[in-house]
Amino acid sequence: MAAKLGIEVDLIPTDWRRGADPAAIETKLAEDRSHRIKAVCVVHNETSTGVTSRDPDVRKAIDAAKHPALFMVDTISSLASIDYRHDEWGVDVTVAGSQKGLMLPPGLSFNAISEKALAAHKTAKLPRSFFDWSEMIASNASGYFPYTPATNLLYGLAEAIDMLHEEGLDAVFARHQRHAEATRRAVRAWGLEIFALDAREYSASLTAVLMPAGHDADRLRKIILDAFDMSLGTGLTKLSGKVFRIGHLGDFNDLTLMGTLAGVEMGLGLAGVPVKKEGVQAAMDYLASCAQAPARKVA
Amino acid sequence: MAAKLGIEVDLIPTDWRRGADPAAIETKLAEDRSHRIKAVCVVHNETSTGVTSRDPDVRKAIDAAKHPALFMVDTISSLASIDYRHDEWGVDVTVAGSQKGLMLPPGLSFNAISEKALAAHKTAKLPRSFFDWSEMIASNASGYFPYTPATNLLYGLAEAIDMLHEEGLDAVFARHQRHAEATRRAVRAWGLEIFALDAREYSASLTAVLMPAGHDADRLRKIILDAFDMSLGTGLTKLSGKVFRIGHLGDFNDLTLMGTLAGVEMGLGLAGVPVKKEGVQAAMDYLASCAQAPARKVA
Amino acid sequence: MAAKLGIEVDLIPTDWRRGADPAAIETKLAEDRSHRIKAVCVVHNETSTGVTSRDPDVRKAIDAAKHPALFMVDTISSLASIDYRHDEWGVDVTVAGSQKGLMLPPGLSFNAISEKALAAHKTAKLPRSFFDWSEMIASNASGYFPYTPATNLLYGLAEAIDMLHEEGLDAVFARHQRHAEATRRAVRAWGLEIFALDAREYSASLTAVLMPAGHDADRLRKIILDAFDMSLGTGLTKLSGKVFRIGHLGDFNDLTLMGTLAGVEMGLGLAGVPVKKEGVQAAMDYLASCAQAPARKVA
Amino acid sequence: MAAKLGIEVDLIPTDWRRGADPAAIETKLAEDRSHRIKAVCVVHNETSTGVTSRDPDVRKAIDAAKHPALFMVDTISSLASIDYRHDEWGVDVTVAGSQKGLMLPPGLSFNAISEKALAAHKTAKLPRSFFDWSEMIASNASGYFPYTPATNLLYGLAEAIDMLHEEGLDAVFARHQRHAEATRRAVRAWGLEIFALDAREYSASLTAVLMPAGHDADRLRKIILDAFDMSLGTGLTKLSGKVFRIGHLGDFNDLTLMGTLAGVEMGLGLAGVPVKKEGVQAAMDYLASCAQAPARKVA
Repeated sequence: MAAKLGIEVDLIPTDWRRGADPAAIETKLAEDRSHRIKAVCVVHNETSTGVTSRDPDVRKAIDAAKHPALFMVDTISSLASIDYRHDEWGVDVTVAGSQKGLMLPPGLSFNAISEKALAAHKTAKLPRSFFDWSEMIASNASGYFPYTPATNLLYGLAEAIDMLHEEGLDAVFARHQRHAEATRRAVRAWGLEIFALDAREYSASLTAVLMPAGHDADRLRKIILDAFDMSLGTGLTKLSGKVFRIGHLGDFNDLTLMGTLAGVEMGLGLAGVPVKKEGVQAAMDYLASCAQAPARKVA
Repeated sequence: MAAKLGIEVDLIPTDWRRGADPAAIETKLAEDRSHRIKAVCVVHNETSTGVTSRDPDVRKAIDAAKHPALFMVDTISSLASIDYRHDEWGVDVTVAGSQKGLMLPPGLSFNAISEKALAAHKTAKLPRSFFDWSEMIASNASGYFPYTPATNLLYGLAEAIDMLHEEGLDAVFARHQRHAEATRRAVRAWGLEIFALDAREYSASLTAVLMPAGHDADRLRKIILDAFDMSLGTGLTKLSGKVFRIGHLGDFNDLTLMGTLAGVEMGLGLAGVPVKKEGVQAAMDYLASCAQAPARKVA
Repeated sequence: MAAKLGIEVDLIPTDWRRGADPAAIETKLAEDRSHRIKAVCVVHNETSTGVTSRDPDVRKAIDAAKHPALFMVDTISSLASIDYRHDEWGVDVTVAGSQKGLMLPPGLSFNAISEKALAAHKTAKLPRSFFDWSEMIASNASGYFPYTPATNLLYGLAEAIDMLHEEGLDAVFARHQRHAEATRRAVRAWGLEIFALDAREYSASLTAVLMPAGHDADRLRKIILDAFDMSLGTGLTKLSGKVFRIGHLGDFNDLTLMGTLAGVEMGLGLAGVPVKKEGVQAAMDYLASCAQAPARKVA
Repeated sequence: MAAKLGIEVDLIPTDWRRGADPAAIETKLAEDRSHRIKAVCVVHNETSTGVTSRDPDVRKAIDAAKHPALFMVDTISSLASIDYRHDEWGVDVTVAGSQKGLMLPPGLSFNAISEKALAAHKTAKLPRSFFDWSEMIASNASGYFPYTPATNLLYGLAEAIDMLHEEGLDAVFARHQRHAEATRRAVRAWGLEIFALDAREYSASLTAVLMPAGHDADRLRKIILDAFDMSLGTGLTKLSGKVFRIGHLGDFNDLTLMGTLAGVEMGLGLAGVPVKKEGVQAAMDYLASCAQAPARKVA
């Protein structure tokens, strides 16, 4: 996207099974003595791989390199599902959307921006109009928008935020972690491999699963859609056919997760993928143990 | 209800675990030489027990006794979920509601009435006003209602009927049978007992399950509600605490059923009820086998 | 309705253009030395005529006659639109519904009952089942209903009550009075006659208008429906064709009233009813004067 | 907007009270021998002034100048309210949105593009990503979107299009013309001036009205909002305070228009603007005459 907009991009190639590499970022920035690099861009939770980058470590890497680059983070599939702290983690630009953890239809996007980003914006030369912060900031002062606002979604947003606070953000994050762990236990019990390699980077909002060699993930997805009316995420670009994704974010509870995992387990059988039929049981054992633990007794 | 309205009721006491007894009805009618009995009232699908009475056999019993009594059937929890035929089965009055198989909020009730019932109504002496057919029939001729109609629900009803016809009534009934069978396999695999005793009378819209002696069904229900936000039906009156009910009717599919059964299995464990943790697996095996069978390939 | 339910009814015949007659009620009760009369039943706001009975005066009449009859009031088309006080006015049974001033679809009905009514209910012999208070009171103690509740409407009711309190009940009642007065000014400016004869009994939620002799109200209603997609109320039974009704209750403001009155004025012209085209202007003059007055500046 | 995106813009300054000037466009294009001009951009219906440009005449001007420039038209506030013909009028790029004549919330935007525009797009160098047609065209082939689609609005769009076809596009356009004419008659009867000067360019979806000298349009708008809860459009930039706008587009009928005009007439009085109180009457006279005419009898 950045390249398409005419920005010179220095992509740090990594294994897709790992998140952004703080060490590589530090090295790259340290080498950039003339400060040609203007921003470090990271996706917090990569929707296509189920890998959550360690943003605080990226911040530390930038600081260690004593580099003035802005730190920009895409939180589309993490905000309100996975703990994220714009100010505390020293992020300069955060991008988010309404359609994932905020449980709304698509149609709203959010930017959180630091003073430093705002200053950079004032001298930036990239052409922009609709996405120009200046007009938004000017209008927002009086509670208005520079363009026709999606008033319906703003009402929905107020309700979604109320719902999140009613449950409590900590409880919301814990719920997503619980569902992710239950999902991983199911995946392992099936004998399949979680795509993310580093346990510190497991996503709490979705889990990507590697298909065994010789089995097509898209065929599995079609079988599950036809038999159980459930649409799983596909593997994107180079993961096409090799990975399927189980989403567990937003307005989701233990039993919707169990319905989801049952659909996957039955689908794996129908597709003839050689797995042990023990994933649903493993997930139930974990969820039941969580329900028993005193930590759940809070609310 | 009938007794409260001043009607003399001759209740045929039966085991709650069985449906209306055609033989007992025939005997009772045959003894009634003076034709004091005005109507035989049967609940098609008893929501509190998960027993579906064999209405065609009841009709045959009335005919065999050569008795002129009206045949009245309550189809609240069966209409549009379990096959039911007002005309073909010779029913005189059918009562239904919007809030079960028709997938709507409560607020509409329906009566299907035979010519014979209509004639009886004209000479009936029971006081009635709102529930008087005369005004409804008079108004309906011009497409109106004698009282303020629930227009919103009538729009919803039109949509619900479209949805049922899109799926096809045969497919809708088969889906409910499939979910009922999957549920029963789960119950048996847990080592628990299905409340309904006669396989011909198993309900396709809900399954009542007997708790083992010494275990309180309402405690189990509370544990499941607290842990998994799922509300199961309670045992009514003399079944209180002894039975819990699993509903599987209306807008429901294989994966919502699996979420439901997973909640029950986990809840049974949390409540310390001695069961085998094999119910969910048994239900999945059955549903997967159905998905594989060519019969499912119709749509 | 009462007669149909087998109750002996002593109807006090009155001019339909006037409300319940407190003097006639007092006389009737005073003559009833043996207290055979069990209840005085009054419609607070008569939807078919736009006449609001003076309930406090009816209460005084009952008290003056020193008669123990219960006082029962139907507030279907007045509750939450016109001031009404169950306790203060000494009413024993109040009946209301969700579909008028409470701005909801039909489907909920409410009873407010005095201790005296509750005592009478315990010894009453009229057959009843669904409408029996005993089961409702028993269930309500634990927050439940004896039958399937219309949960969707209960959520809507909570919201409707919030909306009424946000505006303030006094402001809600004043708004309805303002719209009724504006409507009456329009009717008079057209040269037509308000059906209600006594200014103390003008309804604040609807206004019935007499058609000039030789003009059919139902033809006018059809012309307005066809031309402007607005459905006015018809005259009922003996008023059929002689009266049309302009509703101004519930979720309604000055401009929806003006749209309504404009539709009536244009329709009267299209129907060839000889009126002065000055009604809309008269209503606007009144509403504008209200908007200017300091009383409106409250909120 | 174009200038902000880095495009060299040659703005043809005109009186805001008139639409795009075909003669000026022809002259400008004729002078451009080297074909440096790449596109002629016109707003079909200017929302801020109530002026509808004569797009077919603009097309003729481009043709007369024998200039290869693309013809691009913004139809945000005209599509589905005012007749518009992308192919017939030889438009290369049409831009539209969901939130006006299509009666939906904001959130969808539409581009209709000619083969010529598509060819130009392939060699265009302006940086773009989200607004790049290539990915949309590639995804649309299989019925998908390159980004998360607003599925909810797509369902709404299908319903909106059904509604428009049920009424008939000709009837929809005629309805908007009727409401615009009624509004103009009201404005003239008040003694106020329509902002658009050329009758051929009167907008059918909104009417901008000039305030008399010495009266502030925004004060009037505030008075109307406070008194009648109706929000009129403000004058933008250099028209600020001098113009107010009456919208009459989308899901709108004769009586909602009359409510609107009554609010304006009452508000003008409250604001002390010297007008004749004859606007509402003039609009009603016109609408009633339309309702009487045989042309309306079609449906």
